This record gives sequence, structure tokens and C-alpha cells, in this order.
Amino acid sequence: MKSPYPSTLLENAVNEFAKLPGIGRKSALRLVLHMLRQDEEAVTRFSDTLLRLKREVNYCSCCHNISDTKVCSICADPSRDTTTLCVVENVKEVMAIERTVQFRGLYHVLGGIVSPIDGIGPSDLEIASLEERVKAGGIQEVILALSATMEGDTTNFYIYRKLQPYDVKVSILARGVSIGDEIEYADEVTLGRSILNRIPFNESYKLFTK
Amino acid sequence: MKSPYPSTLLENAVNEFAKLPGIGRKSALRLVLHMLRQDEEAVTRFSDTLLRLKREVNYCSCCHNISDTKVCSICADPSRDTTTLCVVENVKEVMAIERTVQFRGLYHVLGGIVSPIDGIGPSDLEIASLEERVKAGGIQEVILALSATMEGDTTNFYIYRKLQPYDVKVSILARGVSIGDEIEYADEVTLGRSILNRIPFNESYKLFTK
Repeated sequence: MKSPYPSTLLENAVNEFAKLPGIGRKSALRLVLHMLRQDEEAVTRFSDTLLRLKREVNYCSCCHNISDTKVCSICADPSRDTTTLCVVENVKEVMAIERTVQFRGLYHVLGGIVSPIDGIGPSDLEIASLEERVKAGGIQEVILALSATMEGDTTNFYIYRKLQPYDVKVSILARGVSIGDEIEYADEVTLGRSILNRIPFNESYKLFTK
Repeated sequence: MKSPYPSTLLENAVNEFAKLPGIGRKSALRLVLHMLRQDEEAVTRFSDTLLRLKREVNYCSCCHNISDTKVCSICADPSRDTTTLCVVENVKEVMAIERTVQFRGLYHVLGGIVSPIDGIGPSDLEIASLEERVKAGGIQEVILALSATMEGDTTNFYIYRKLQPYDVKVSILARGVSIGDEIEYADEVTLGRSILNRIPFNESYKLFTK
């Protein structure tokens, strides 16, 4: 079939953009035409910035989060509580948890989550280095903060088993009704767990006022 | 305020993606992390394809559509009707009209539309070259196929006035109720114009069966 694109250069650029998650061919064409309207300097900057990130990206030698420095600013911050580790999937989750301002410990970034469909097994993730950190001592609690999905549960369970030999408390984020959610629309699994894991009212009250 | 990004390299890449139309900072981060998971070859290909398009893009010397060759494949096709020109905003509209398989004439791509808000005047568009083509003779009809917006109407009227001195028929796409639309939900301007511009039933029938 004849290509609908009047130019191979254009088609190639659309193909590249259409590989990005959540971007279809129509959006890709719109994005490419937008780039074409920019001056060459802007397009060069776009390309260079992306390539530089890919080539020069560095991961913190301690928590494996993306970092410009050998040790990231969180791991290097002397005011953080070094006895608590929060295990997350990626930099996005570090940023989300930092925004809550409720956590003062350190992170451990797995760089993904166990997902047999995508061919990602425990050895592809920073799990051995987590075990090393715990083995080295000084850590009292590991908080598992992975997504509440099947993949997250699998990964949580694998890590939990790996950390069993060590004298460390392993906890997991509370599951429950989201703040602002109407009970009527909460899914039954969440609602069921939030009943089983209910907390004394005065404790919940303290959480909000502290 | 402290940057929420743990890395300047990462932040720069997110900033570049967030400049694209319709992409917010959250989507930008998702896209950047996706690129980071690809191998360096894929990221290089993405960057290079975009830069190559920007640096080597060529516009058809005849209709000004994007083209790999000096004259595009539509203008070079001897089976096309050279007496009819369809004036469009951009390559997207050429592709959309080609998909209908209802037009066998040639195009004239303006490269935009008159938009005072964006600082785009008639001189920024391929309007003078349109006049040249008409002046050169051989063209019997110019079909204005711009968006049915205020900017489109302004551009249509400007072109119409420019072409007045020449012996050429200037027509415009029919406005009316979209195929598949329910009358109840059609806006009143469209509905009003579709009543004023009503066509004999047997003519509408012929349109579908020819």
C-alpha cells in the first residue's frame, strides 16, 4: 500500500514519536509538525538533551535513584533517618513520596517491578543490593511502597522472603479508602481490607493533626 | 524552591518534552523514563530522525507540501487534474483529503492560517505563490479547504479577494451536518447553514452512488 505520508523523513519522525507510550500516529504527526515549526536550535536542544540524559545518566551508588552526583542529595542529607528504607519502583515514586513530606528516611529504588509478561525477573532489579544494605546493618525498618497490583504484590513477597533472615521489620503501605473517595464507589477489595485494617478513631485523628 | 527532580539531566529532558503541545510535566516524565529504558541506539535513532527531518526537510516547489523530492508525488502525477487547486493549511489536511479519494486535482499548502494572536499574517503564508500559480493560467477552480473557524474564514476571505482579478472560480467546502450526526445535537449555526444550502435529494443520492 502507498504510504499516506508525502515524505519518508516525515514518516520516520512520526514512527519514532508513535513508539512512545500513549502516543498514537495522529498525535505523533501533530508533535512532529510542531517540532518542524521550531527553529533548528530548539530541535537540536531537544535532541541533545535527550541524548545527554541517556549517555550521562548516573544512578546513586547508595539508593540507585537517578542522580547527577555519585551519591544522591537524599542519601547525602545528614538530617535523614538512616534506619528506615522505603523500597520504590522508580524515580517517579520517590518524587511522589517526597511531595507528601511524611517520610524522612532513605529510599531504595528497584528500577522496576517483577513482571514475567515483560520478561523482568528479580535479578533485573536492585534486590540483591537491597539485601546488601540490610545485611550491612543499621536498618531497622524496610517499608515496601510498590504499586498495589499483582506485579507489586509478587515483588513485595519476593523481597519479604529475601529479608526474612535479617533482624529487620518489613512493613507495607496501608491499603484503604482514598481520602476524598465515596464509600459507594470504592472497590470491594479495598473496602474489605479497610474494614479488616481499621484503626482507632483517635489514632486516625492524631495522624491528621501531628 | 528546591527542584522536585533528583537530577538536572532528567529535569532538562522533562522540560523539553513538556514544551510539546498537549504534554504536561507528568506525561513528560513518563515519556523521558520510557526513553531511558530504551538502549542508546534507539535513543540516538529517535534524536537523529528528528534532527534529520528538521535539517533536510524539503517543500514541493509547486504546492509547498512536505516532500522528499523537488516536486512532490502528487504534483508530479500526470493523472491528476491540473485545472483544480485545493488550498489547505498543512500536510495533515492533504493527507485527510487524499484519504477521501474524492479529489483528483492538485493542492496548494499555505503552511498555516492567518492568526493575528499567533502573529501570523498573510505574508507568512504561501498566498503570493498561490496568486502566481493562478496568474500563470490553466487553473479553472480554486477550492478553499481551510478549517471552519474564524481564522479559516479570515484566510478564505483574504484569498478570495486576492483572486478576484483572475478568471477563476473560487469555491469552498460545503458546511453542513456531519454524516452520522444526530440533528438534535448539531449546533444551530451548522444546522442553519445546512438548511440554507440544502440540495435536491436526488443530487445528494448521486453523490453517494457515483
